[in-house]
Amino acid sequence: MDDIFAIIEERKDVYLEWLTRICRQPSIAAQNVGMEETAQMVVEFLNGIGANGRLVETDGYPFVYGEIGGQSDKTLAFYDHYDVQPPDPLDLWESDPFEPDIRNGTFYARGVSDNKGNLIARVAAVDAYLRARGELPVNVKFIFEGEEEIGSPNVEGFAEQHRDLIQADGCIWEAGYCDTTGRREVYLGVKGILYVELTARRANVDLHSSMAAIVPSGAWHLQRALQSLKDHEEHILIGGFYDSVLAPTDADRQALRTMPFEEDGKRTQLGLDAFINGLTGEALLEQYVFQPTCNIAGMWSGYTEAGLKTVLPHEAKAKLDFRLVPNQDPHEIYDLLVKHLQAQGFGDIEVELLAAEHPARTPMDHPFTQLVIDTSRDVYGQDPIVYPLAAGSGPMYPLCQKFGIPAVSIGVGNENSRNHAPNENIHLKDYYEGIRHIAVIIDRFDSL
Amino acid sequence: MDDIFAIIEERKDVYLEWLTRICRQPSIAAQNVGMEETAQMVVEFLNGIGANGRLVETDGYPFVYGEIGGQSDKTLAFYDHYDVQPPDPLDLWESDPFEPDIRNGTFYARGVSDNKGNLIARVAAVDAYLRARGELPVNVKFIFEGEEEIGSPNVEGFAEQHRDLIQADGCIWEAGYCDTTGRREVYLGVKGILYVELTARRANVDLHSSMAAIVPSGAWHLQRALQSLKDHEEHILIGGFYDSVLAPTDADRQALRTMPFEEDGKRTQLGLDAFINGLTGEALLEQYVFQPTCNIAGMWSGYTEAGLKTVLPHEAKAKLDFRLVPNQDPHEIYDLLVKHLQAQGFGDIEVELLAAEHPARTPMDHPFTQLVIDTSRDVYGQDPIVYPLAAGSGPMYPLCQKFGIPAVSIGVGNENSRNHAPNENIHLKDYYEGIRHIAVIIDRFDSL
Repeated sequence: MDDIFAIIEERKDVYLEWLTRICRQPSIAAQNVGMEETAQMVVEFLNGIGANGRLVETDGYPFVYGEIGGQSDKTLAFYDHYDVQPPDPLDLWESDPFEPDIRNGTFYARGVSDNKGNLIARVAAVDAYLRARGELPVNVKFIFEGEEEIGSPNVEGFAEQHRDLIQADGCIWEAGYCDTTGRREVYLGVKGILYVELTARRANVDLHSSMAAIVPSGAWHLQRALQSLKDHEEHILIGGFYDSVLAPTDADRQALRTMPFEEDGKRTQLGLDAFINGLTGEALLEQYVFQPTCNIAGMWSGYTEAGLKTVLPHEAKAKLDFRLVPNQDPHEIYDLLVKHLQAQGFGDIEVELLAAEHPARTPMDHPFTQLVIDTSRDVYGQDPIVYPLAAGSGPMYPLCQKFGIPAVSIGVGNENSRNHAPNENIHLKDYYEGIRHIAVIIDRFDSL
Repeated sequence: MDDIFAIIEERKDVYLEWLTRICRQPSIAAQNVGMEETAQMVVEFLNGIGANGRLVETDGYPFVYGEIGGQSDKTLAFYDHYDVQPPDPLDLWESDPFEPDIRNGTFYARGVSDNKGNLIARVAAVDAYLRARGELPVNVKFIFEGEEEIGSPNVEGFAEQHRDLIQADGCIWEAGYCDTTGRREVYLGVKGILYVELTARRANVDLHSSMAAIVPSGAWHLQRALQSLKDHEEHILIGGFYDSVLAPTDADRQALRTMPFEEDGKRTQLGLDAFINGLTGEALLEQYVFQPTCNIAGMWSGYTEAGLKTVLPHEAKAKLDFRLVPNQDPHEIYDLLVKHLQAQGFGDIEVELLAAEHPARTPMDHPFTQLVIDTSRDVYGQDPIVYPLAAGSGPMYPLCQKFGIPAVSIGVGNENSRNHAPNENIHLKDYYEGIRHIAVIIDRFDSL
């Protein structure tokens, strides 16, 4: 690989210029800022390495797609996204979010960690490989969407309509970070999510609270519905909720044992006496990684300002998010939730579905998993931390798992990359190492 | 009484001018607008009828006090307040809230029903009585506070410091209304109130909701605390909560039976299938009038805007108001609540006391009650509706009940007087009849 690494070293400034150029270009999907320009720029990056970049239209922002044939019939795909989060609050940024700034070897810009640094690193790795060897050992596909930050509403449709474009033998997923000691992290899947908004109503108007003696309350109605969902030991009471949850395998438990998790430090930092149910050690980690959740992300009713107002609220709302684990299906869970509420006397409560994403994961013992772990060890000089499931969600199911494509997530972020927050950043060292890691994966992918 | 009624008729325009003058003068305690000017104006009104008006300082806005000696040693007191609610939302007023406007015999202005119309009606009644007879048959005291709309924080202190000023054989309380048919209403008491704000915390910061698998949630913690307060049949579970509740007497139940309450119409109007626990008829009314409540006036936690955010809230808040009935003591109930939360495992939840007012009532069979009912029948030509307890609260306990002074509430409002709301109003007919009613009560008070 020395020849390729030499090219990467030689073209350091070019790859930095690419990164600067794309980060300077805003692409805020939520606000429709710069989306067309960015998509076009990504097409040009792909064309620049001979990947036949093109826009693939959807009902929303287009995908940018490209491919380069290789010497074998194996195909490696890269999933990334060219959209970014809105940059606010602006006053907390130390430099302009869309004017990249390098301070002490760290590159600051909105989107550099999530996800433009990874997107460009993959393009750069292919560029370096081709310059060193003239040809790729395997086929490579670039699948870049523009709506990840707004929930990837068109990934499923894109995948269904363009099965030929997404077909691959493995997919490098969008992002990865390291722990505080610099040890890289590898994620074998994502939790799914079901996000709903409940609306409970009783009377048709807010009343003076003296009526509370005889008029039922939307707030209490919601309370009781929420209370029916989970017991005090955090066990979710929706019938059938756990039916399709897969127990961790022995290999999963083995991975848990090697995961560093500073539980006392974390607990102290959060000001907690204990984690849920007093869990510690392996049981705590197993709960964290492999258990689904039922979380109140928000709730509100009645008077919420300072001081006092004596009102009987007719309406109350809650936002709930359920983190789902393989093989829970978010739409099935939605149906079970609605059925549960009906059965418990809360059938009049509205349940609006705000988001549904499947969980997805690639098994610990899949050869692609092993390839990514082995190459990570080789490039970074130590074993990566392997997360069987990442904490976050993403469209890994509709793009990969549904079609049997293994997916593993790695990337160029660090332990404090501040995705979605001011002063988003990556270390340049991680950027160049990430390019090398991708090049090595390409090099060995045919052995799969 | 014809001589006195003739004077009232003769001085109609004067009493209207008095009402206009005081309503034109803003007196918004919550915003410290016009308070000093209004207190001074009320002093002058009292001096105008020879009542030796004066300010009595408190830690807040002063009381305005006045008295006139009479032929007997009996003393009749009037409790009213010269402060008003803020007028907003201004754009919903059809005329300037502080520029009185008369349309179709209805007088519109902020505070005219709550409580300046009653305050001036009482001054006018004494004025007319004195002009007709030269002397009052009983002593009369005017006790006007300036902080009723901000919770009467200084009534208790005032009463304790000035027992001589408040001592009386009966007190006409501040306000009264009529039903949709024009039948007058008489209130023999007020419910008390305990208003608290609960704050539940778990971690010391909001977290990404993926942490919900292992990190306890402030929102669920509050949920569980609230749920411990009341069962699904609305029975309050705080130990000792009902211990001092007085059961309605036979006379109370008799009054309930004569109370018009269009329960089907009310239910339909509110869009309800049923009142609480499916109650109807006398049981419904008894619950409404004589039962205490535990109401969620407001609650909030986490993300409450549009769309979705996956946050695990570390903090959740609820505002609770307990309507209390004789003889519940709000401070005792506060202690019971805190004790309950501690016993149930919610001892870490903060319980901030925002307001505490005692319930108070005058018995149905008290001679003063009968005097007010009898005079109401005489003046208005039909039996009034007698409420053993009004829905709202007020400082009747520290000013009257605590010292054994019977208090009965009547006034010049109507079924749609819009207290605290835009287009607050009274009918001029009710105003003049209210003046007559007060004059008749003064006339017969010595018979008590």
